[in-house]
Amino acid sequence: MNTLGEKFSFTSFGESHGKAIGGVLDGVPAGVRIDMDMIHEALDKRAGRVKVKGAVSPRALREGDEVEWLSGVMDGVTLGTPIAFIIRNKDARPEDYEWLKHSYRIGHADRTYQEKYGIRDHRGGGRASARETASRVVAGSVAQQLLKAKGVDIKAKLVQVGEEKNPERFDEYIAVIQRDGDSIGGIVECVITGLPIGVGEPIFDKLQSHLAFAMMSINGCKGFEYGSGFESVGLKGSEMYLSDNHTLISGGIAGGISDGTPVVFRCVFKPTASNRKTFEAIRREGDEAKGKSIGRHDACIAVRAVAVVEAMAALVLQDFLSK
Amino acid sequence: MNTLGEKFSFTSFGESHGKAIGGVLDGVPAGVRIDMDMIHEALDKRAGRVKVKGAVSPRALREGDEVEWLSGVMDGVTLGTPIAFIIRNKDARPEDYEWLKHSYRIGHADRTYQEKYGIRDHRGGGRASARETASRVVAGSVAQQLLKAKGVDIKAKLVQVGEEKNPERFDEYIAVIQRDGDSIGGIVECVITGLPIGVGEPIFDKLQSHLAFAMMSINGCKGFEYGSGFESVGLKGSEMYLSDNHTLISGGIAGGISDGTPVVFRCVFKPTASNRKTFEAIRREGDEAKGKSIGRHDACIAVRAVAVVEAMAALVLQDFLSK
Amino acid sequence: MNTLGEKFSFTSFGESHGKAIGGVLDGVPAGVRIDMDMIHEALDKRAGRVKVKGAVSPRALREGDEVEWLSGVMDGVTLGTPIAFIIRNKDARPEDYEWLKHSYRIGHADRTYQEKYGIRDHRGGGRASARETASRVVAGSVAQQLLKAKGVDIKAKLVQVGEEKNPERFDEYIAVIQRDGDSIGGIVECVITGLPIGVGEPIFDKLQSHLAFAMMSINGCKGFEYGSGFESVGLKGSEMYLSDNHTLISGGIAGGISDGTPVVFRCVFKPTASNRKTFEAIRREGDEAKGKSIGRHDACIAVRAVAVVEAMAALVLQDFLSK
Amino acid sequence: MNTLGEKFSFTSFGESHGKAIGGVLDGVPAGVRIDMDMIHEALDKRAGRVKVKGAVSPRALREGDEVEWLSGVMDGVTLGTPIAFIIRNKDARPEDYEWLKHSYRIGHADRTYQEKYGIRDHRGGGRASARETASRVVAGSVAQQLLKAKGVDIKAKLVQVGEEKNPERFDEYIAVIQRDGDSIGGIVECVITGLPIGVGEPIFDKLQSHLAFAMMSINGCKGFEYGSGFESVGLKGSEMYLSDNHTLISGGIAGGISDGTPVVFRCVFKPTASNRKTFEAIRREGDEAKGKSIGRHDACIAVRAVAVVEAMAALVLQDFLSK
Repeated sequence: MNTLGEKFSFTSFGESHGKAIGGVLDGVPAGVRIDMDMIHEALDKRAGRVKVKGAVSPRALREGDEVEWLSGVMDGVTLGTPIAFIIRNKDARPEDYEWLKHSYRIGHADRTYQEKYGIRDHRGGGRASARETASRVVAGSVAQQLLKAKGVDIKAKLVQVGEEKNPERFDEYIAVIQRDGDSIGGIVECVITGLPIGVGEPIFDKLQSHLAFAMMSINGCKGFEYGSGFESVGLKGSEMYLSDNHTLISGGIAGGISDGTPVVFRCVFKPTASNRKTFEAIRREGDEAKGKSIGRHDACIAVRAVAVVEAMAALVLQDFLSK
Repeated sequence: MNTLGEKFSFTSFGESHGKAIGGVLDGVPAGVRIDMDMIHEALDKRAGRVKVKGAVSPRALREGDEVEWLSGVMDGVTLGTPIAFIIRNKDARPEDYEWLKHSYRIGHADRTYQEKYGIRDHRGGGRASARETASRVVAGSVAQQLLKAKGVDIKAKLVQVGEEKNPERFDEYIAVIQRDGDSIGGIVECVITGLPIGVGEPIFDKLQSHLAFAMMSINGCKGFEYGSGFESVGLKGSEMYLSDNHTLISGGIAGGISDGTPVVFRCVFKPTASNRKTFEAIRREGDEAKGKSIGRHDACIAVRAVAVVEAMAALVLQDFLSK
Repeated sequence: MNTLGEKFSFTSFGESHGKAIGGVLDGVPAGVRIDMDMIHEALDKRAGRVKVKGAVSPRALREGDEVEWLSGVMDGVTLGTPIAFIIRNKDARPEDYEWLKHSYRIGHADRTYQEKYGIRDHRGGGRASARETASRVVAGSVAQQLLKAKGVDIKAKLVQVGEEKNPERFDEYIAVIQRDGDSIGGIVECVITGLPIGVGEPIFDKLQSHLAFAMMSINGCKGFEYGSGFESVGLKGSEMYLSDNHTLISGGIAGGISDGTPVVFRCVFKPTASNRKTFEAIRREGDEAKGKSIGRHDACIAVRAVAVVEAMAALVLQDFLSK
Repeated sequence: MNTLGEKFSFTSFGESHGKAIGGVLDGVPAGVRIDMDMIHEALDKRAGRVKVKGAVSPRALREGDEVEWLSGVMDGVTLGTPIAFIIRNKDARPEDYEWLKHSYRIGHADRTYQEKYGIRDHRGGGRASARETASRVVAGSVAQQLLKAKGVDIKAKLVQVGEEKNPERFDEYIAVIQRDGDSIGGIVECVITGLPIGVGEPIFDKLQSHLAFAMMSINGCKGFEYGSGFESVGLKGSEMYLSDNHTLISGGIAGGISDGTPVVFRCVFKPTASNRKTFEAIRREGDEAKGKSIGRHDACIAVRAVAVVEAMAALVLQDFLSK
């Protein structure tokens, strides 16, 4: 249930305000040198510590993610045995979350967790917290390095924020939303180059099926499309197949199998529920508990999702290439 | 690779112009009476033999799908052992496909198959043919019956064809496209009611991940979204979470787990590549082989996809409820 | 539950007196010519139709196993798609088994099935019948052919019947038991040559774990050992590791991984419960139903198990070599 | 590859002389209080810190296994999320193992690892070390507690050492072997009581198949049998099925499914290769490196295996009961 992949698998564990989060990567080939700097760059990108066109996350300072490697690596080189790593949770102030013990936040999984398990770690969302994606990014970065060695490159970027499609204006747009105490959705596009022909299985284990599965597992992702995606509805066959822009339309996949051209897909991320405006409105309606703000929030979670989209794509592809 | 699900699993086999297509359903509880009429109704819907607002498929007559049950059922009641069934391929005219031996059709998986396997059953697309979905519909219909007994209802329908969103006009719209020798995309929406709270796992095995996986495995599906889906990009948090139309926006899932309200998702289907206009255009460009028409085609594959969407959703949910 | 293997998997279906038994083999590489004669030889061996040192099975005539190939093979060559096959059940005389509807045979799984499922196909043991192993032999023979092409050879033989260890006397020994209306146990030894170094995984997925799993799944198998096996208990380290007969002791596996020498393992098969003496004794005690004989039986099921042991070993190894 | 189980799964990681060994338990129900004392008792038993009839392990002092719980448990109660734990390796003296860098020990997996991975952690056997079983014992003890709450009890014990079958004389026997610088094999018997009827699946996933798989994955285990086991070879059907001692013969399993009587199985453990006599003999033959003793060793590894056998049985059964 907390494992993704078969021959190259990633098992994730940890609550956001417990002792540590972490993971186990199984199926990593032996004898590969791991570039720790690349892993930290990916973590910085996810944490909003790198400026993605200026959209610095207010949560950036909080998470100084230090990765401790417990097994599978000797002198920086993989042993072919499972790689276990942890990131200790530093800034655990459980008192901040005491009120959540008996309250469900709107737009969060608080209630479904309580119903499903009868118990939950209420602190900061516990297992449902986006903090868990830090482990995904560590694992995904290892996968990305393995893929790079085979010539496969994964590159995601933000292509839309609200109605804005011009990247030059994303900063400004998000800053306005942030000042306004509101949040906004965004679309992340990912392009995979260098993938050989033949990746994917024809019936259920189609390449697009596994990519969709992985992307939909990212918190806040509400949709996945590849190639012409939802625009396909308005296309006529005579336009689609005679188009010069083949890749844009096919998305690099035919019959579930990579066709040798770049694989292109997009995911949409909803606005976060943790925004001041929502809280204030709820409070006005008299529901004090639900309206209690936990302070810092991201105006556009799609910004930080870019690193997670790359990580998840890398985990999927490395698993396919390990079979 | 040809199996979907864990505790309730479906294994699919068969080439479209081989001896038979079929499947094995494992994990079906013992002692359940199977309603064979419901299975044939689902097959008829998939085959376009029932009028879905008049859009009768020109391929309908060809496929008189008779299901032969080989095991797992005694006197119409399940034994708890694997249920194997086959549908024999009647109308096998391999000579119709002789030209495909040395030619790849545009918009089909012919080339990726050949590259991946070094061999393929060229007749009618072989394994990549949409005919394989008949087996999915049989299996899915069994799953739907098991779900119905638990109060879970799955209902899909066509909600958009081209730019048209008014179901009253779908017939006419598709008829025009058909006459024109062209094809068009469509969007299928599926609503699941009666699902208890708690279905889905919090991290990777989210309910939406498994639904997306299953839908993206249907031929021609280019995108999946649930709840507010891609429209989320333009929503502000203050609008989204204070909306009265909760379900439309949440899609019945929170944190990967069903929240007790109806689950709503949509998939988009591209226009089929098998249309006269495309063929003629290719032929004009001098590529005789590629432009060879195989005659009958569906102007809007989304019409028949409705039955497959229901089947796949049922397989996913029955697997979740079997765990 | 009815599937064995991951990258090369076999799904088994069918009740012994239903319409057909059969299976689906997934993960077979494309472009391989299947030798149908070898499959029938293996089936003959399993059915006791070939004289294994004269011990002809009285059930031999009954099962003229004709294999029908439904998919995955075109003109005798594999397509890389799932191979489905069936063997129709001819000699279905359900009236022979009518008495079993309300009675459990001793030494059979009748009662555990009824308790587990609340329903069972009582005819001839249904799914628990040894007839199911015919499907395993077909699948295993395909695997054996794939392995042979890689230089891996699997050869099993009977090495002990009762207290008799001299193969020259097996015939006679079994004939006496048969005449006496009794049954007797046996030990099958299997030797795998040509396996490269490195097959098996170090922790759980050890080579011996998968072989033991597969052998213990054969009806009547009560024990598995490799190399020095149970004799290890009486060995001193100083004897064991300084022995000249390395393979006999190591069994060709070190730390769960093949070491390049022949892999040697043994399985023990209990005497069948279907013997006249047992029935008569039970009848004398007044339990008519339980004591009802179904006529024909094998005095030593280990004879026919030889073909099944080879088949199961082949399925395990081909799965390992497909990863 | 390093994961056992499906619905209740255990992922193991760590090299014996790396930073830590540990594991992740997934599928543990929420709201269960874990008894940490029971876990430490099991660890003590495995480490030879408790006197099992006096046979105290010389390695006992070295391993003061302290378990650190990283996730899945809050205030001693499970959260339903994955439980990660680690045991740090204290006594890491890599210089002791420097000579192993370029040498393979006899009877160990040194060579197969090097061949398979091209690299290995040579320190103390790395991943192949018996130290890894400490993680299994922690995980197994959690499983045992979950089973106990359902009335299922697992109890293993040493039943044979060398030719000695009288437990009263085991101490003495092993002490002699130890003084002699030699090692000896042993047989562990495990009895499971309280298991409900119906555990196990009829075809491949038989109860005995999963138990055999798990036992054969323990270092040094060369054979598995249940019920009458290898003694079945000499039994006649007329003796076997009319015996009064049903359980001893059936082993509590019929057709792969538990029959409600106690499940009884046995595993044999070979003498360890790490004994002075072997080393001296090798050294006499001039192979200095191979003959280098690493000092402490267990004269009979079956003594400590008792705790591991219980742990593995618990992991298997809890997985079955979670489905």
